Amino acid sequence: MKTLFKLSIAALLATNLFANPLVQEAKKAGLEPIPADDKALEKLIDNPKNKLTPEKIELGLKLYFDPRLSKSALISCNTCHNLAIGGDDNIPVATGHKWRQNPHHLNSPTVYNAVFYQRQFWDGRSPDLEDQATGPIQAPPEMAMHKDMAVKVVKSIPEYAEAFKKIYPKEDITITTIGKAIGAFERILVTPSRYDDFLNGDEKALSKEEQEGLQTFIKVGCASCHNGVALGGSMQPFPVAKPYKYANVGDFKGDKDGKVKTPTLRNVAETAPYFHNGAVWSLEEAVKIMGETELGKDLSDKEVQSIVTFLNALTGAKPQVTYPVLPNSTKDTPKPDLN
Amino acid sequence: MKTLFKLSIAALLATNLFANPLVQEAKKAGLEPIPADDKALEKLIDNPKNKLTPEKIELGLKLYFDPRLSKSALISCNTCHNLAIGGDDNIPVATGHKWRQNPHHLNSPTVYNAVFYQRQFWDGRSPDLEDQATGPIQAPPEMAMHKDMAVKVVKSIPEYAEAFKKIYPKEDITITTIGKAIGAFERILVTPSRYDDFLNGDEKALSKEEQEGLQTFIKVGCASCHNGVALGGSMQPFPVAKPYKYANVGDFKGDKDGKVKTPTLRNVAETAPYFHNGAVWSLEEAVKIMGETELGKDLSDKEVQSIVTFLNALTGAKPQVTYPVLPNSTKDTPKPDLN
Repeated sequence: MKTLFKLSIAALLATNLFANPLVQEAKKAGLEPIPADDKALEKLIDNPKNKLTPEKIELGLKLYFDPRLSKSALISCNTCHNLAIGGDDNIPVATGHKWRQNPHHLNSPTVYNAVFYQRQFWDGRSPDLEDQATGPIQAPPEMAMHKDMAVKVVKSIPEYAEAFKKIYPKEDITITTIGKAIGAFERILVTPSRYDDFLNGDEKALSKEEQEGLQTFIKVGCASCHNGVALGGSMQPFPVAKPYKYANVGDFKGDKDGKVKTPTLRNVAETAPYFHNGAVWSLEEAVKIMGETELGKDLSDKEVQSIVTFLNALTGAKPQVTYPVLPNSTKDTPKPDLN
Repeated sequence: MKTLFKLSIAALLATNLFANPLVQEAKKAGLEPIPADDKALEKLIDNPKNKLTPEKIELGLKLYFDPRLSKSALISCNTCHNLAIGGDDNIPVATGHKWRQNPHHLNSPTVYNAVFYQRQFWDGRSPDLEDQATGPIQAPPEMAMHKDMAVKVVKSIPEYAEAFKKIYPKEDITITTIGKAIGAFERILVTPSRYDDFLNGDEKALSKEEQEGLQTFIKVGCASCHNGVALGGSMQPFPVAKPYKYANVGDFKGDKDGKVKTPTLRNVAETAPYFHNGAVWSLEEAVKIMGETELGKDLSDKEVQSIVTFLNALTGAKPQVTYPVLPNSTKDTPKPDLN
């Protein structure tokens, strides 16, 4: 009887019956925190098919920063998804090999918290980070590397070759295993913020104004797409209510159903310019446009400001990364090709 | 009397009368170790006009990695002087803004141990790291930034503006103070190696083969230019004995007297391709060419191999660098310009 009572109390607590009403409202709207508990977080970010281990993360970190995975040997994953500046490049259109721009004028999305996405890339064509990481390495306007050359680079560097053998003993080194190692590193790039503290029970973690902003965010309907742990990450129709104001910048039309991957709002204050085509620099303008385009609402300046106040609270703490000292090239390492 | 005796023993030790004969020979040839003593090292790398402080180094580190100091906001000091891969870019010719190559086909030199140079740049036109750092920021084929825009970027970011005010209270933020902060960070980029341990008294730090290599290095005359702590860093005539085999790659002719800044040999195994025009990938070939060009000697394969064995022992331990999380841009931060 006593045990049963204890259990029901635990169940009640788990369902947040005693939680702050705004927290309840947020959770009802589909908003979820980054778990405060390390084990729960680890479970959430792990990939059963590519289990996280310290060695794998360390190898992925090195490859993430290694420019030799690009044709020119000048561009690394970190060039466009720069961990120093919000996990992206802060320029309107992704620019890579030979200074080429993305042909659809697509903006580099942030790598931070991308682990929480349901799909990867703006058109959602990739299921996870491991698969995604193999794309930009090979894309001609990005790192422009032939996959066989990427493998050759890795195999030519004994420290890498040995690490792969140890970590993936049953698999050859391929662009797939390279993507798996990089994806593993990217999985740990999560940035807990005061917003998470608030949803996890610390009522004072957000100021009164930020809480009002969260309320407005939910009330006007932002959370209908920007939900889950990422506050984004699902495929959604775009535009819905009115044409997107800058639809003429580039020719991106979304996936085959016209859906676009909803970007995360975490660290959004650090990831201007906004939208798939990087057409808007101001967060206020971005919020206003989303109100019109997706919700069919002409948000007041006060509502916009309130939402932006909340969005600023989504800037999170970045994991500390030691800049790697990479293993040396050998005579067998393919030479850079700037052309 | 007792004190005097003690003093003379100390003096004898200081003059290395009891040192290993090869160490004595090396010192006689002008080779100097990175001091093992922290205070002595600090004194050696410090700049009386820009005293090292932790705050200054921290600010310089951030600026070193900050791509917003370039016109495109894509290129940082670290792009071409990459601390992950020997402190340079490992491509033949420096490539920067709009994928432009250095017009004289000059190779990016390593930033590691550049503090020990007498002059900076291949033509020695700059006296120190603080001055040097202002060059690539503004050079059109490198970061291509107008100095006023670099200042505007820094001033637009409150954390930077406050740091400069605190560190250089009597100076306005200018390209000069930006260079001073970056230069301060670069001063700590020294890489002690087993070679230094050997010169500092640990006779077993170098293998027998490496010691023989050092002997050969001195005997054939390499140390006549590659000396000092940097094993390089002074302005020297080039070529001396025979024309440089790849003189036709680019049009660099040295300074007004035809002198070229001798590059450091520290970490040389990590900084291929070699020479001012990056024309040679193999360290063996580079040594052979230097024998011909500078010393007028046709070094035997055995001599070349012995010298290369020694050069490999110059790969040093890199300082651990935490990849910075940079302060956010503001509405006043100039927008990137990819053109």
